[in-house]
Amino acid sequence: MATVGLIEYEEASPEVRQVYDDIMATRKVDWINNFWKALAVQPALLRRTWNGVKEVMTPGALDALTKEMIYISVSVTNNCEYCINSHTAGARKKGMSEEMLSELMAVVGMANQTNALANGFQIEIDEAFRNSGRDS
Amino acid sequence: MATVGLIEYEEASPEVRQVYDDIMATRKVDWINNFWKALAVQPALLRRTWNGVKEVMTPGALDALTKEMIYISVSVTNNCEYCINSHTAGARKKGMSEEMLSELMAVVGMANQTNALANGFQIEIDEAFRNSGRDS
Amino acid sequence: MATVGLIEYEEASPEVRQVYDDIMATRKVDWINNFWKALAVQPALLRRTWNGVKEVMTPGALDALTKEMIYISVSVTNNCEYCINSHTAGARKKGMSEEMLSELMAVVGMANQTNALANGFQIEIDEAFRNSGRDS
Amino acid sequence: MATVGLIEYEEASPEVRQVYDDIMATRKVDWINNFWKALAVQPALLRRTWNGVKEVMTPGALDALTKEMIYISVSVTNNCEYCINSHTAGARKKGMSEEMLSELMAVVGMANQTNALANGFQIEIDEAFRNSGRDS
Amino acid sequence: MATVGLIEYEEASPEVRQVYDDIMATRKVDWINNFWKALAVQPALLRRTWNGVKEVMTPGALDALTKEMIYISVSVTNNCEYCINSHTAGARKKGMSEEMLSELMAVVGMANQTNALANGFQIEIDEAFRNSGRDS
Amino acid sequence: MATVGLIEYEEASPEVRQVYDDIMATRKVDWINNFWKALAVQPALLRRTWNGVKEVMTPGALDALTKEMIYISVSVTNNCEYCINSHTAGARKKGMSEEMLSELMAVVGMANQTNALANGFQIEIDEAFRNSGRDS
Repeated sequence: MATVGLIEYEEASPEVRQVYDDIMATRKVDWINNFWKALAVQPALLRRTWNGVKEVMTPGALDALTKEMIYISVSVTNNCEYCINSHTAGARKKGMSEEMLSELMAVVGMANQTNALANGFQIEIDEAFRNSGRDS
Repeated sequence: MATVGLIEYEEASPEVRQVYDDIMATRKVDWINNFWKALAVQPALLRRTWNGVKEVMTPGALDALTKEMIYISVSVTNNCEYCINSHTAGARKKGMSEEMLSELMAVVGMANQTNALANGFQIEIDEAFRNSGRDS
Repeated sequence: MATVGLIEYEEASPEVRQVYDDIMATRKVDWINNFWKALAVQPALLRRTWNGVKEVMTPGALDALTKEMIYISVSVTNNCEYCINSHTAGARKKGMSEEMLSELMAVVGMANQTNALANGFQIEIDEAFRNSGRDS
Repeated sequence: MATVGLIEYEEASPEVRQVYDDIMATRKVDWINNFWKALAVQPALLRRTWNGVKEVMTPGALDALTKEMIYISVSVTNNCEYCINSHTAGARKKGMSEEMLSELMAVVGMANQTNALANGFQIEIDEAFRNSGRDS
Repeated sequence: MATVGLIEYEEASPEVRQVYDDIMATRKVDWINNFWKALAVQPALLRRTWNGVKEVMTPGALDALTKEMIYISVSVTNNCEYCINSHTAGARKKGMSEEMLSELMAVVGMANQTNALANGFQIEIDEAFRNSGRDS
Repeated sequence: MATVGLIEYEEASPEVRQVYDDIMATRKVDWINNFWKALAVQPALLRRTWNGVKEVMTPGALDALTKEMIYISVSVTNNCEYCINSHTAGARKKGMSEEMLSELMAVVGMANQTNALANGFQIEIDEAFRNSGRDS
């Protein structure tokens, strides 16, 4: 059970409804998922978070599916069950195939392993990587 | 200073040199970065990890650059300095522009925020997300 | 199901009962929560952990509610479900309002985001922050 | 070295300068710290993050110092060096004494320990904590 | 529900069955646990991961039980429920007593606490520890 | 630079000196490492943490070296530089060979990988693991 009461559309204030309407219009769905219903306990938190997610996830130099897969990578590493489930669903809706999902997981798994090895052995950053490939 | 002695090509055993040669050939570079020189303290660890990384990072359903950006997402979330620097350099070499990097960071930052919010409010997974978008 | 058998008051040794009694007396409750019943498999672990928690959570330069909210911040970032639920309940008992809870989550969420950004861009610590505000 | 070029005030676009000006005015300082200079590589990221931090850190149901200490708790748990240093400095400026800092650390340390114990023993959430203290 | 369909022995391809057979032969069991059934969605991921786990967990300079306990330590710190449960079961099968489990948890808990304290106070590494005990 | 002033033996209060003396006597060394000098800013934190570490690290059902390696496993997963360096040095002093260190790292790396895979695929715990091997 969530630690706060979820706010349904019917009981929502006009300010909250406006965000809910924008979520449904932007995503072309007719329902609001629990994440937003929980954030609605503080309308400013709801509005700011939704506007941020909307802005960040809009296709730009990276396409929408790539962004969803990055979202999944972070959520897996943080072990956020809600986010893994919702963004895996979101990525599928945007075209992620089973092959793409399993390759994504293979990379996420490998990265978690080599992160541990690099930290565990306290490996010094090579001179060539110190500028992370920036021209300088 | 690394917790183990880095093994240079000159002092490496034939088994280790074989892996080093494959790394340089595969990446079309003429040097070995510290990560592999540390893993070489256990040749089996070096070989297995390199073969895994090579296999995982080969373009498949996901292209090489997308895989590098996923690697970065995990490394940032785990805060592995070595990995952030080396894979940011790697992604640039594969074509990541400054715009792509800043969009990548924007998604990684937002995902870390909403992961915390979903966990913090202990939000229940919506029925629609429970199958993570799988046909069933 | 816990990985160890929970030890109920009735079956507890005198050493464990003494800690259980102190927990109930200190918290003014008439039951023991599962956390302590699990730790009781090693009486020394139970005693040491309880004495530590008791000492640390006693109001000092920081009041009891602030300490509970700090506890929640850590538990959310680590995603400890047990701890999020028990300490959110504990903080409410000590006076945390719904407004305080949602502001707390807003800060925790924002901090997780900017932590990722600072690490992701590998931002150097400014000279002025190097002493973390200490007189020197 | 940061993975992106820091943008100094002199070379900044009008859009970025506007945010820099607001940061200096809000914080009553005459310089911009590296975090914002890195985010400025993407003006939308800079603006959104600053507006978010400003909104979240404004005193409300929680005072400014409590919010800073929550920020520190998260940053320590994530091990973000930049954030630990900058927010410890920020908290001191807002009145955090050495006693408060050491009590804060004592709580953060204890929470990290008991989080591990609760997860490690896979302790079930007590019925009484399932609603996290909410009226229901 | 897993985000991918679990692949049962009966429906598995010859390539997957070969790995399943090796898992059962190596572990002297007559069933396959869900972890491998999920990885089987990508036979290369299944094969590589199993071969890696098999190689790593083979007794060498460290015995099998010590390796299982190290696996648990990592799984607890990452809060991987599946892994905590399966490796605690695995360690018991290899001889871990209740006393050993509770001592293991005591160390894991304490390490998580002192990790937070060392990071929180940003303590400099002593000269004597800089070489991590290596002869040099 | 640490966020608090390190307290040297010469300037320490009798209460702090008593702990310092016990640390040196227990470890058979003639110096105090920075970790304790930082914790000494709050004598109660110093005393409690030292007593806890001393109690936990005393050989019992697990020997001293196994405990050090568990400590390293957690520290690597949390990426605590101070702790990785100090406990790797500590483990070496207690007899950890280069072979043991590299096997330890191989297990820690593999566990971090499979943790991510189990979480990423949201794999259900098998019935047989639900009791984590407990008799029931």
